[in-house]
Amino acid sequence: MHTYSTQVGIIGGGPAGLLLSHLLHLSGVESVVCEARDEETIATTHRAGILEQASVELLRTAGLSHAVEANSHEHRGVYLRFSGRSHHLDFTELVGATVSLYAQNQLFTDLAEQRRRDGGTVLYETTVSDVQGLQETRPVIHARTVNGEEVRVECDFVIGADGSRSVARTLMPAAAEHRHSYPYAWFGFLVEAPPSADELIYTHSPQGFALVSQRSDTVQRMYFQCDPSENADEWSEDRIWSEMHARLAGDDDFALKTGPIISTTVLPFRSYVREPLRHGRLFLAGDAAHTVPPTGAKGLNLALHDAKILHEGLESFYRGGGSQGLESYSERALRRMWRVQSFSYWLTTLMHNPPGQDEFSNRRAAAELEAITSMGSGRRYLAESYTGWPHETW
Amino acid sequence: MHTYSTQVGIIGGGPAGLLLSHLLHLSGVESVVCEARDEETIATTHRAGILEQASVELLRTAGLSHAVEANSHEHRGVYLRFSGRSHHLDFTELVGATVSLYAQNQLFTDLAEQRRRDGGTVLYETTVSDVQGLQETRPVIHARTVNGEEVRVECDFVIGADGSRSVARTLMPAAAEHRHSYPYAWFGFLVEAPPSADELIYTHSPQGFALVSQRSDTVQRMYFQCDPSENADEWSEDRIWSEMHARLAGDDDFALKTGPIISTTVLPFRSYVREPLRHGRLFLAGDAAHTVPPTGAKGLNLALHDAKILHEGLESFYRGGGSQGLESYSERALRRMWRVQSFSYWLTTLMHNPPGQDEFSNRRAAAELEAITSMGSGRRYLAESYTGWPHETW
Repeated sequence: MHTYSTQVGIIGGGPAGLLLSHLLHLSGVESVVCEARDEETIATTHRAGILEQASVELLRTAGLSHAVEANSHEHRGVYLRFSGRSHHLDFTELVGATVSLYAQNQLFTDLAEQRRRDGGTVLYETTVSDVQGLQETRPVIHARTVNGEEVRVECDFVIGADGSRSVARTLMPAAAEHRHSYPYAWFGFLVEAPPSADELIYTHSPQGFALVSQRSDTVQRMYFQCDPSENADEWSEDRIWSEMHARLAGDDDFALKTGPIISTTVLPFRSYVREPLRHGRLFLAGDAAHTVPPTGAKGLNLALHDAKILHEGLESFYRGGGSQGLESYSERALRRMWRVQSFSYWLTTLMHNPPGQDEFSNRRAAAELEAITSMGSGRRYLAESYTGWPHETW
Repeated sequence: MHTYSTQVGIIGGGPAGLLLSHLLHLSGVESVVCEARDEETIATTHRAGILEQASVELLRTAGLSHAVEANSHEHRGVYLRFSGRSHHLDFTELVGATVSLYAQNQLFTDLAEQRRRDGGTVLYETTVSDVQGLQETRPVIHARTVNGEEVRVECDFVIGADGSRSVARTLMPAAAEHRHSYPYAWFGFLVEAPPSADELIYTHSPQGFALVSQRSDTVQRMYFQCDPSENADEWSEDRIWSEMHARLAGDDDFALKTGPIISTTVLPFRSYVREPLRHGRLFLAGDAAHTVPPTGAKGLNLALHDAKILHEGLESFYRGGGSQGLESYSERALRRMWRVQSFSYWLTTLMHNPPGQDEFSNRRAAAELEAITSMGSGRRYLAESYTGWPHETW
């Protein structure tokens, strides 16, 4: 039995949990993080990430500028491709903002290293089984290490930031839950080839959605819409490229840079919302509280926003400012979450084809994309939503 | 047998057919209109209408300012009501444009009187059965009056502007047709009471869509979403008001002005597109060519736009400018039509609840409406789309 006594116990060592732990450290508040996986697994499980402008500002304000400089790539815009042509949206010109390509697993590594440098306590391979005393002043997190050793974390507050299969969530009494499933998934793969484009290409086509993204100077990340029941192993390289070429086909001179495919995976997705995000001294954050479809890449940004406002509430509490910030956390977090959820849903349904898509729907979607990309107001609406609303107001 | 010899034979005496006939007259081109219904029926069948700014400008340019002044009401904005509150969009402030409430049957009356004053030939109660010679230089329209008299209209061009159950359309060989059905209809009714609001109120609620509109100082026009299989006769006044109150309910002091209900009807709707709009010397215009759902009130505007660009093509032809304008008609008309179709679909699906609507969808739609009404770009996007794009470009 190993017992830790701290101020904030954090279940989950992903970006939300680690950022919160780091922000609390900066405020002089102690925390202990329990993470079920080992550090190497998280660091090497590639997960894409696009950071909103406000997320990048948050990381910089938190003293992580060195990591941002070294490991993210600023994108000034995005391409929307439909009807066989790419339409560029210049975010800087439209709304004076940018986004940054910053792989989620790289952000994890940067945060984990920062916590290590600062002497933070992050218990990897430590699986939480229960939390007791959520309605009392000192709840206790019960966990067990991979070696079978029991761990107790006594704390003032418990944060459930343990992802979409959250254990923390199950410790709350039944609350309102909202779900929406989508009749498609993403087939994702990595390609050993230099980038096909300098910025992301979101593609709508009669054959379905496709996304051309980047990972490094020598490896690209790509996705195309598939049925959720697809088995990635059944797809040959030829078959994958055939799909991508059909969806990216056009009248211009755009050409995919192809190469050996080194990893494939089918990513099903759904929308999920749980509310409220608080039960006694337990607070949910990130994917444990809500998931959004991947189109528009908002999930990581929501998680970082949750960590930010949870930190504000906790900091205020420990500085004697009362519990108002903690009491308003759920409402503030959900307010932004619903806006993001709505944007992600809209962009997803606009860019993807439902099964049995007919020609009316293809033409209609192309006409909406044409309106959005050719009307100044449409371009700004998309640019503002994609780069993200300021944290202060949303 | 009565034979007419003219330049343009127009099947259908609704707003598209009559406006085209009037515009041709102004250009010195003769036309004969065949309309199956009698004038009184069309004039007294109430049909709502909201004219885009460009439609009003078109009528003024066509010398119909007197009718516009006397019979339309300018609206500077619209209300979007959701989550129990009304949100006003001021079109003038946002995009420097307005729309005008102008009942479609009133516009018909104004155009019919104008044609009469100008000595135009409009054959009411004359049903077209066939058109011969569409691939030759002088096609012939075959029709029959209500009294059984045969009518022949020999002309250079035939225009099919005979509405959504078009006979003219059936004279074309099979072309591409696109349809989309919606799982709801509108329950429309007239109320003997002064207006509840100065401008339209489009309402989204967990109970479904509702629209509060105006007709005159003493009669209101209202609608609410219902199942397409509803029978209007089965709805008592109490039941109707109960639905409206539930949908308009809110936290503010808005109150419906109620009164005796003098007319009820269930209006099913769908999206329909036929292309191309030309076959030999036959051209389709208005509802004969395409229908859009009523949300946003675009159908009449599309019909007037069709008449305008068809007139441009015909005028150019008769002035010796060649047939380029006629050859590009289908593409030009369909280009605007798809944009309008896309907007009407978007606004319809956003404001209505599909059967089995769940709480996720309610909250998501409310969040999208919140984003649109609170973001400057969203407000302008909606205002620009609702008041209509300039005819020159779209």
